[in-house]
Amino acid sequence: MTQRVAVVERITKVNDQLAEANRARLEAAGVFGLNIMASPGAGKTTLIERTLPLLAERLRVGVIDGDLATSLDAERAAAAGALAVQINTGGACHLDANMVAQGLEQLPLGEIDLLIVENVGNLICPTGFQLGTHRNVLVSSVPEGDDKPYKYPSSFSRMDAVLLNKTDLLPVCDFDLERFRRGVRTLNEGLAFLALSCKTGEGLPAWIDWIAAQVETSRKGR
Amino acid sequence: MTQRVAVVERITKVNDQLAEANRARLEAAGVFGLNIMASPGAGKTTLIERTLPLLAERLRVGVIDGDLATSLDAERAAAAGALAVQINTGGACHLDANMVAQGLEQLPLGEIDLLIVENVGNLICPTGFQLGTHRNVLVSSVPEGDDKPYKYPSSFSRMDAVLLNKTDLLPVCDFDLERFRRGVRTLNEGLAFLALSCKTGEGLPAWIDWIAAQVETSRKGR
Repeated sequence: MTQRVAVVERITKVNDQLAEANRARLEAAGVFGLNIMASPGAGKTTLIERTLPLLAERLRVGVIDGDLATSLDAERAAAAGALAVQINTGGACHLDANMVAQGLEQLPLGEIDLLIVENVGNLICPTGFQLGTHRNVLVSSVPEGDDKPYKYPSSFSRMDAVLLNKTDLLPVCDFDLERFRRGVRTLNEGLAFLALSCKTGEGLPAWIDWIAAQVETSRKGR
Repeated sequence: MTQRVAVVERITKVNDQLAEANRARLEAAGVFGLNIMASPGAGKTTLIERTLPLLAERLRVGVIDGDLATSLDAERAAAAGALAVQINTGGACHLDANMVAQGLEQLPLGEIDLLIVENVGNLICPTGFQLGTHRNVLVSSVPEGDDKPYKYPSSFSRMDAVLLNKTDLLPVCDFDLERFRRGVRTLNEGLAFLALSCKTGEGLPAWIDWIAAQVETSRKGR
């Protein structure tokens, strides 16, 4: 057991060093990075599709899409106007900093202001691996249930923002918005909590403003 | 990289040996085992809650619930009438055969016919670890989208049955049932595909019949 823990710690340490190198590379190019994580089907790809046109006048965006096997997500991001790169993890359950470094090789960093990394659909594993991005965003969704912050506390507590997607389904799902919000706030008082629907567009302006404010703060900090 | 692969292979091999021991132990006690896997929020726990009363006249059921941190799921299974044991994985993203062996220690195997293992909410990692159960069941759900078999092929192809839950949401979700079914069938022609709603009860009788048939076939095979 000790042997196994030691191996995991070594992998994590190597990953963190590569993540720091990614961060330095992004900052040298003036690029701000978001790492978007979620369960399968929470709506990451649709969120990115809806976000890209709304950011178009303010920021130039690149997308790195992590997926087990297909390139469906990058195709959707490219169709929505982003410079998009697909990383197939070959079955691995999360992106790591080395995979993102390979993605950065393929993106013209001088031509973008914002990098959105869409992680593999998995609420647990991606949250333990730094990629070198500046903010962690978790997308949860109404049909998944209001108990998710309580059941996946380590995932929720590591985020800078939690988006609750599919609010259009609130009338037909047994979901207590206050219970969810309380769970999020208890775990992590400081994070941004945004409820939205990619289907109706409700709440998307606040999400766009949040992104713009993060990028602006980062620029002032340099 | 070779080093890392070797470690993973060794862990998997040890797990498979422990899984075989679990299987032998279940069979010696005449217990049939189901391993239920799904994304967070697909409805595993609710499915088990709804299943237990419907099986009550036919089979005596024990439940092992895997969870990152809480005992919410086992409490719900116990309230629904099962002998239930909670395994907290301490943050690990899937159950393994050793954890299930510890759960078996706490269950009176002579008093049950069916063991339901509720895995950790994760569509990827649990599918790679045998537990010693007899059938693998994946619960997908309508709001997750009809692209899931295409995006998580290795998970779907390893199953004996795929349940599509939350069919009550078909009218309000953009979900092509034929596209989903085609994806499942292409990956794995032989598996059972059952559409159901734990909310309305639609499709639950077919699921109960499927379980009963599996247990019956297994008894005849001995």
